[in-house]
Amino acid sequence: MIVVMKERAARHLIETVIAKIEQLGLRSHVVEGTELTVVAALGEKRDGARQALETLEGVEKVVPILAPYKMASTEVKKQPTVVRARDLIVGGGHVGVIAGPCSVESREQLLLLARLVRDSGATGLRGGAFKPRTSPYSFRGMGESGLELLAEAREATGLAIVTEVMATEQVGLVAKYTDVMQIGARNMQNYPLLEAVGEAGKPVLLKRGPSATMDEFLLAAEYILKTGNPNVILCERGIRTFEDHVRFTLPLASVPYLKQKTHLPVLVDPSHGTGKANLVAPMARAAVAAGTDGLMVEIHPEPDRALSDGFQALTPDAYNRMVTECRQVAMVLGFKL
Amino acid sequence: MIVVMKERAARHLIETVIAKIEQLGLRSHVVEGTELTVVAALGEKRDGARQALETLEGVEKVVPILAPYKMASTEVKKQPTVVRARDLIVGGGHVGVIAGPCSVESREQLLLLARLVRDSGATGLRGGAFKPRTSPYSFRGMGESGLELLAEAREATGLAIVTEVMATEQVGLVAKYTDVMQIGARNMQNYPLLEAVGEAGKPVLLKRGPSATMDEFLLAAEYILKTGNPNVILCERGIRTFEDHVRFTLPLASVPYLKQKTHLPVLVDPSHGTGKANLVAPMARAAVAAGTDGLMVEIHPEPDRALSDGFQALTPDAYNRMVTECRQVAMVLGFKL
Amino acid sequence: MIVVMKERAARHLIETVIAKIEQLGLRSHVVEGTELTVVAALGEKRDGARQALETLEGVEKVVPILAPYKMASTEVKKQPTVVRARDLIVGGGHVGVIAGPCSVESREQLLLLARLVRDSGATGLRGGAFKPRTSPYSFRGMGESGLELLAEAREATGLAIVTEVMATEQVGLVAKYTDVMQIGARNMQNYPLLEAVGEAGKPVLLKRGPSATMDEFLLAAEYILKTGNPNVILCERGIRTFEDHVRFTLPLASVPYLKQKTHLPVLVDPSHGTGKANLVAPMARAAVAAGTDGLMVEIHPEPDRALSDGFQALTPDAYNRMVTECRQVAMVLGFKL
Amino acid sequence: MIVVMKERAARHLIETVIAKIEQLGLRSHVVEGTELTVVAALGEKRDGARQALETLEGVEKVVPILAPYKMASTEVKKQPTVVRARDLIVGGGHVGVIAGPCSVESREQLLLLARLVRDSGATGLRGGAFKPRTSPYSFRGMGESGLELLAEAREATGLAIVTEVMATEQVGLVAKYTDVMQIGARNMQNYPLLEAVGEAGKPVLLKRGPSATMDEFLLAAEYILKTGNPNVILCERGIRTFEDHVRFTLPLASVPYLKQKTHLPVLVDPSHGTGKANLVAPMARAAVAAGTDGLMVEIHPEPDRALSDGFQALTPDAYNRMVTECRQVAMVLGFKL
Repeated sequence: MIVVMKERAARHLIETVIAKIEQLGLRSHVVEGTELTVVAALGEKRDGARQALETLEGVEKVVPILAPYKMASTEVKKQPTVVRARDLIVGGGHVGVIAGPCSVESREQLLLLARLVRDSGATGLRGGAFKPRTSPYSFRGMGESGLELLAEAREATGLAIVTEVMATEQVGLVAKYTDVMQIGARNMQNYPLLEAVGEAGKPVLLKRGPSATMDEFLLAAEYILKTGNPNVILCERGIRTFEDHVRFTLPLASVPYLKQKTHLPVLVDPSHGTGKANLVAPMARAAVAAGTDGLMVEIHPEPDRALSDGFQALTPDAYNRMVTECRQVAMVLGFKL
Repeated sequence: MIVVMKERAARHLIETVIAKIEQLGLRSHVVEGTELTVVAALGEKRDGARQALETLEGVEKVVPILAPYKMASTEVKKQPTVVRARDLIVGGGHVGVIAGPCSVESREQLLLLARLVRDSGATGLRGGAFKPRTSPYSFRGMGESGLELLAEAREATGLAIVTEVMATEQVGLVAKYTDVMQIGARNMQNYPLLEAVGEAGKPVLLKRGPSATMDEFLLAAEYILKTGNPNVILCERGIRTFEDHVRFTLPLASVPYLKQKTHLPVLVDPSHGTGKANLVAPMARAAVAAGTDGLMVEIHPEPDRALSDGFQALTPDAYNRMVTECRQVAMVLGFKL
Repeated sequence: MIVVMKERAARHLIETVIAKIEQLGLRSHVVEGTELTVVAALGEKRDGARQALETLEGVEKVVPILAPYKMASTEVKKQPTVVRARDLIVGGGHVGVIAGPCSVESREQLLLLARLVRDSGATGLRGGAFKPRTSPYSFRGMGESGLELLAEAREATGLAIVTEVMATEQVGLVAKYTDVMQIGARNMQNYPLLEAVGEAGKPVLLKRGPSATMDEFLLAAEYILKTGNPNVILCERGIRTFEDHVRFTLPLASVPYLKQKTHLPVLVDPSHGTGKANLVAPMARAAVAAGTDGLMVEIHPEPDRALSDGFQALTPDAYNRMVTECRQVAMVLGFKL
Repeated sequence: MIVVMKERAARHLIETVIAKIEQLGLRSHVVEGTELTVVAALGEKRDGARQALETLEGVEKVVPILAPYKMASTEVKKQPTVVRARDLIVGGGHVGVIAGPCSVESREQLLLLARLVRDSGATGLRGGAFKPRTSPYSFRGMGESGLELLAEAREATGLAIVTEVMATEQVGLVAKYTDVMQIGARNMQNYPLLEAVGEAGKPVLLKRGPSATMDEFLLAAEYILKTGNPNVILCERGIRTFEDHVRFTLPLASVPYLKQKTHLPVLVDPSHGTGKANLVAPMARAAVAAGTDGLMVEIHPEPDRALSDGFQALTPDAYNRMVTECRQVAMVLGFKL
């Protein structure tokens, strides 16, 4: 940490900062500039040190130097983490494709889509059984019977199942059926839930919260990694900005940025990331070109009859065209999709 | 709902929209303009109707007309809701003041601050026993022993206790000790938790998520109201924007806006809402002038020794000055504080 | 426009709205719903009508139905506009590549880069002679002698010159030397400047302001189109959001969105759009995959010696790799680059 | 500046940084931490130094230490600047009130409002003669004849005139009529215009751009101050965020923040800052309570007939109530209004 003193800060205030740094078990190092003085605080990071210094008289600001996450960092593990669940491979040059309906609605719908997904060459099937909904008056999913249908679709197709878990008390139930546990964007900082899914031991797909910074996103992943579960997929699904022509702004620079900072694989969800079916395919292609390790896409046989989020679901035809184009982009850049 | 057709949409596409509206159990009404046609869909709102229409061919957009929340709306209940817990009164002309440390740290700290809070004329004591922390390496609170200290401080001072609950499995425990259950900003859309605290029956202080719109905020309140618990306090605590000189941007226009749209009382947290101790008092005064029903403020006897968020805590002296000024502003505008 | 009345609005307030609509020269059409009444206002759009209605008693809100821009709209002109300047072609399946230094710094630097750009197959040369700088203490460009060097570089290479004009009084001077006039992001809503460059008759590259909505962006283009100059290139260069790991958030969904709404070509600037050299190439590839009509990229022979924005400039080697990859992506998707 | 090296950066990379720092005419000071090395660069700030260092191999980031503005800083001038124009006083304990129509529309309208403003005790009259409008199809003001009417209103009432200037070529004309030159939010970074109004010598009211950071805002003021014109009023008028229930988010924490960082007075515009008439009065009161040095408010005799922005204009009655309340808040806090 670097403690920046106010200009012309009195000598005794600088001394107080030095004393506090040492009291915190850190070493201090004073650098006197032309206009102001900075004091470096050296040693292992200690929680609370920053704020203890920030609130001292005469201190202008405290600048952290090290990233706040550890286990997620490429400093700790250089080699990319590859997450596998059945034939789904995310990372290490593989662009894993997960597709399916927003919500599981019926046996017929799910099996139809699952076969379509398998035939397109994708290896993951998404589908919500427990749905977090902004309004308490909206359809909230089929619950356990939805999970049973997902398991049946896996039997029929071999696809890996990806489904959301919304509460610690559902973790055991969902883990019984799914291959990958999804944490939704609204729950990115639901820490008891992160720890519970971490402990369940299955791979976790962690969605970025719509106002989370990269550090916050990686610290959320760190909660899961700390339980000993190394299989975390980071999912960029759009952020909240002033833009009003899309549901969320999809910032694809997250992909190359994260791939420099973390060994965890990074997947993109262009369906939620745009909220409009006619923007999904171009953004899926763009995500592949930016180097994503995976895609998650919503499809529906008849989007206008979907019980949730039909406006962002692709029809089977549109989905197949999208996969073909994405595969071409991937191949030319040396990725497998 | 108003369905806006694309310019020059073919007649048969308009017919399809009409048919779909009727199939949804709504009545349709066509309005042909100079350049385009709109179709009104009349009747009780039905979840899913919007998206069913939005995805039809030839439809440019669907404009909702009614607010999505009901029980929280002034359309349903004109009279302001006043939330009471012991001597704490929030709403109906009363500006309830809640103050205390970010985290409960020790018996000594808490009792000292509790007496200070009571002597300032405030009637609520805040203090975290279970703390959601961005980093898994940060202090996460004293847990149940923190709750016991809060209860002891209540015995000593008569203050109403306000403390956060982070998980459904903690609801029973926290409810045993606290007077007001706080839902933190990170959990604003943790729906199982909203329902659990609603059912616990105690007043709930619901913090706005840092990227939540007003509709989303009120719909989160609606989850609690739907359980039959009418005592919800809305808490504006700042939003995430591009501003980098504050921790969050505190949008005080939320106060008069919410007071027009909902009967629920609106409280402001200028400590989290700015993240800087020297901005807290001016923003607390401003919140009162804007018509807030309450304030929640972090204080600490020695902010530089706080185990969490010391940089935004007021010292006892600064806090007392703030309360005096806020009281003056309140009185001149006809509010009780 | 659709005028939405408040619930239970009194009959006479609805009558007042109808009267005002007719007074404005529009036709009214009342639609009575179960819970509220809406009044459609039909006819040619008239400025001021919306607000005249919005401020009437009993009105909840006024919802515009038509896009506010006209000449930029695909409703008016279906065929894509292709902008040409020398060998630079932007639009109509051609991905025009413009590269060069942030600022023109010297004859030697510029000629070196111009040859590099030409050899890479690009057809546009960017370079600032007049630089808008956030701080008045920063280097503000070489002025006219920079323009002369750009003209010399054009002679030497045949590249089309793209350079910024910051003030109406510079328009004549800049037009004398450049092939494409660039309007910077800070000036997107500098209306006198938009009209002046429009009248100068040369193609205009209009950068999106960092907080402009799509409607505002297209209305800024409309200012230029209204002067009779049809050659406007829209440039997405990133928006301001809460993200702190990039200089700006680059929302590539703008590309497919704009291509649906306007016939004008859409170009992406991944250098300003990320502000970090190591994110430029992945985002350039992504922009091509999303369907961009052009790229504008900053390069520098020795980024650490650049007089402005060196941190986002590519080295010659990195630039050449980027062009190769972008060309591969373009080809596989059927675009020429 | 502090140059933070990457973890385990090779010794020769650190040497390169040191050499570059010295080549830039700065002194270097190496601090070796447990996990990484930082190098302080000491001496007068030099433009370009930061980026020259930021782009070197092995450098993780460069952290600036000093604020980028100088003349605007309280480090340079402790005493608050008080801006005066006729009886309008902004700063130094005086809350200057400026009110008037969005646009000057007619002699009758303007004189009516001017008398109302004077009678309320306000000392500034606002009114647009040249209006920047998002759409080229909107009313753009009366031009010079509007300025003549403003001058006439000044004759009749003694109020100081505040009006916007949009282009360098209008500066002379506007300066002839007005007492305070207003720079609109869209032009906050129109540097030729800032310099031109600075040189015109009259007080300048500088509006914050809707996506400007505080540093950018103060650097824009610095452009004016550098011309030798010390009379700059900073105007907070709202920022662009994801909030959709207001036109802009009005972040009142700007007021106390700016008052710590700069000696320049800070004024708040709650009309543009909310965009809704019924939010203006509460936010005006809040701004006073937060310590603003001035208010600028839009009024109109009949808001529904205004030629621009009627939806945010107060009626005369609402305006008078607002002034009375603001005066009460000001008095109790020791300000003159």
